[in-house]
Amino acid sequence: MPIPGQLNPPVRLLLGPGPSDVHPRVLTAMATPLLGHLDPQYLVLMNETQEMLQHAFFTKNRLTIPISATGMAGMETCMVNLLEPGDKIVVCVNGFFGGRQAEIAGRTGASVTQLDAPWGTVFELDRIRDVLSKVRPKVLSIVQAETSTGAWQPIEQLGKLCHEFDTLLLVDAVTSFGCVPVKLDEWEIDAVYSCTQKGLGCPPGLSPVSFSPRAGEAIAKRKTKVQSWYFDLTMVQKYWEADRFYHHTAPITMTYAIREGLRLVLEEGIEARWARHLTHHRALKAGLNALGLDYSAAEGHQLPQLNAVKIPAGVDDLAVRKKLLNDFGIEIGGGLGDFKGKVWRIGLMGFNARAGCVFQVLGALEQCLQSVGCKVTPGTGVAAANKVYAA
Amino acid sequence: MPIPGQLNPPVRLLLGPGPSDVHPRVLTAMATPLLGHLDPQYLVLMNETQEMLQHAFFTKNRLTIPISATGMAGMETCMVNLLEPGDKIVVCVNGFFGGRQAEIAGRTGASVTQLDAPWGTVFELDRIRDVLSKVRPKVLSIVQAETSTGAWQPIEQLGKLCHEFDTLLLVDAVTSFGCVPVKLDEWEIDAVYSCTQKGLGCPPGLSPVSFSPRAGEAIAKRKTKVQSWYFDLTMVQKYWEADRFYHHTAPITMTYAIREGLRLVLEEGIEARWARHLTHHRALKAGLNALGLDYSAAEGHQLPQLNAVKIPAGVDDLAVRKKLLNDFGIEIGGGLGDFKGKVWRIGLMGFNARAGCVFQVLGALEQCLQSVGCKVTPGTGVAAANKVYAA
Repeated sequence: MPIPGQLNPPVRLLLGPGPSDVHPRVLTAMATPLLGHLDPQYLVLMNETQEMLQHAFFTKNRLTIPISATGMAGMETCMVNLLEPGDKIVVCVNGFFGGRQAEIAGRTGASVTQLDAPWGTVFELDRIRDVLSKVRPKVLSIVQAETSTGAWQPIEQLGKLCHEFDTLLLVDAVTSFGCVPVKLDEWEIDAVYSCTQKGLGCPPGLSPVSFSPRAGEAIAKRKTKVQSWYFDLTMVQKYWEADRFYHHTAPITMTYAIREGLRLVLEEGIEARWARHLTHHRALKAGLNALGLDYSAAEGHQLPQLNAVKIPAGVDDLAVRKKLLNDFGIEIGGGLGDFKGKVWRIGLMGFNARAGCVFQVLGALEQCLQSVGCKVTPGTGVAAANKVYAA
Repeated sequence: MPIPGQLNPPVRLLLGPGPSDVHPRVLTAMATPLLGHLDPQYLVLMNETQEMLQHAFFTKNRLTIPISATGMAGMETCMVNLLEPGDKIVVCVNGFFGGRQAEIAGRTGASVTQLDAPWGTVFELDRIRDVLSKVRPKVLSIVQAETSTGAWQPIEQLGKLCHEFDTLLLVDAVTSFGCVPVKLDEWEIDAVYSCTQKGLGCPPGLSPVSFSPRAGEAIAKRKTKVQSWYFDLTMVQKYWEADRFYHHTAPITMTYAIREGLRLVLEEGIEARWARHLTHHRALKAGLNALGLDYSAAEGHQLPQLNAVKIPAGVDDLAVRKKLLNDFGIEIGGGLGDFKGKVWRIGLMGFNARAGCVFQVLGALEQCLQSVGCKVTPGTGVAAANKVYAA
């Protein structure tokens, strides 16, 4: 067969729902020659990664590790370890990824109760209290940052509530970690999973997870084997503990990447990182509003790192996104599921939460909207953003 | 917390059972900025990767893709997709990884028949015919290159034999792919999994798999959902087909890596690559024998890429391996399971199947063996290797 040419991808600015652009220091780290996965020096890097993850998750949980696969593998890891056939789980579904939680939970043989809310909205504490008291589930799962709608679910009080009913709280932090607060211990979260390709500014490839001692006990008390061998924490955790029992070959280069990504988080300061995401979100939001675009999530529940806006009536979704990509090298996200063709999702995550990205996407959107017949006052998006920056 | 320092791993030569050293061109590819996982240009890279994988596996199988996790995830992918509760599988176990196949198969709810053979030996066709005719399993699984023993299982005739009994043949090619022949179509293999960190000279992080049309039919006919959502091929394959249905975010950087690794395979020519592995194995073997080390697998069944040798009586396993690592920066593997403390495993895989590696490990072993009291004639290992190279 003819051999494909040298790798030569076009330059992109990744402002979709993830992956976001990788920080240059992380890219450099990934070109580093390997250590073996049982090399004493590699074990040091593992320990450092674990400690930085704990720090970034605001937790003392010992079982805080990156799972050796992408974010959705973290979702599966949580479900298959926490649930056994016949266990009860309540899944809160107000978007695409809540639906996924329900799907994956169902494959464990657990009894799944789905609590629904309209896409783009968030759940009230009272509704959750109500379902907890009726169902008395082993686990309640919820998405903190619903990637499909841009809605920001408050979860600060949820852990305490769940524990009143002896329920474990499982949180999807795929799109929140590294962008907005995720405080495991203070908020009494029992299990969490995230990814590397959004708030951490790394490529996709790992799923950081963390489990409270309460969740660890539940896993230790299982009567059946975890259905997945690859995601079986009772085995995986032994590789992360003192005896370093071999389970599978770790994705070493991805450890280099997440370690560098976490170093960047700590250097910046995690609170400063949250503040940075808020600042650029406010600027982007002002600009998008000035261009005539409204958010799909309600005011007060809009994620800073994922700006989902309604596509104006009559505007050709694909035409705009293609022009953005082909003429300006900018990727934004289309809608998923119920929101297909109805929203655009503009991410400002990790390394990409910066003014340069805000200006680029507003400038390019202005021209793309004009090209499909929208009336846009020239310069109005960037001007509105700059007003926020100047304030 | 104090921020860990810049990534600065010591330089190693990875001559264990894998990971092996990454080819410099692959390292460079991994520092390339990302494309989005649905970018039209990324889809081109996916197609190219798939075609090169088919070529390297000698197959036309459409369902030939890299699974988004390390090698053991490929093992799980094959088991959970091919097996349903109540199905029958025969697993051939003559080493650590055969045992793993049995363990993972058991978690699917399948009925597992284990065919045992002593570690270091291989299975005869007649024994397999016998068990097939008795059990009539849906699947027979076997390891082509048993990483724990260095034994090379002949599998050329196995597919035909399995098909006489309407059984699917599943092959572990983790340590064989890219080093020795793996010809899926000619040998009628129905399912295979491998890894990236051995024969392909990439970091760990993907598991190439391939399924014959016959295996694909078996998956399509399933009555139950695949227990793993992340590894569910009925969904994963839609992302690799024309409609590009989103399943999970692909590990983009690892796609860059495997694509470059496969380009190197094709540039060299896959037959030339097998020949190269044989040449350096012969040189290494002559050298190891000259140093007084014997292979643990029988003559005629020794893998070129993984040289498992018996640790001489009275020699301190760890002392030798520590000195190799600390004084010479060379990693070799210790024994696993039944072979713990009994063998060393010296890999010459992918990029590392070259004379420079042979000379280094023979030179360093000579000194390390002397340091623990072995009588070794100075220079004898390298001299023996050079005799082979000169022939």
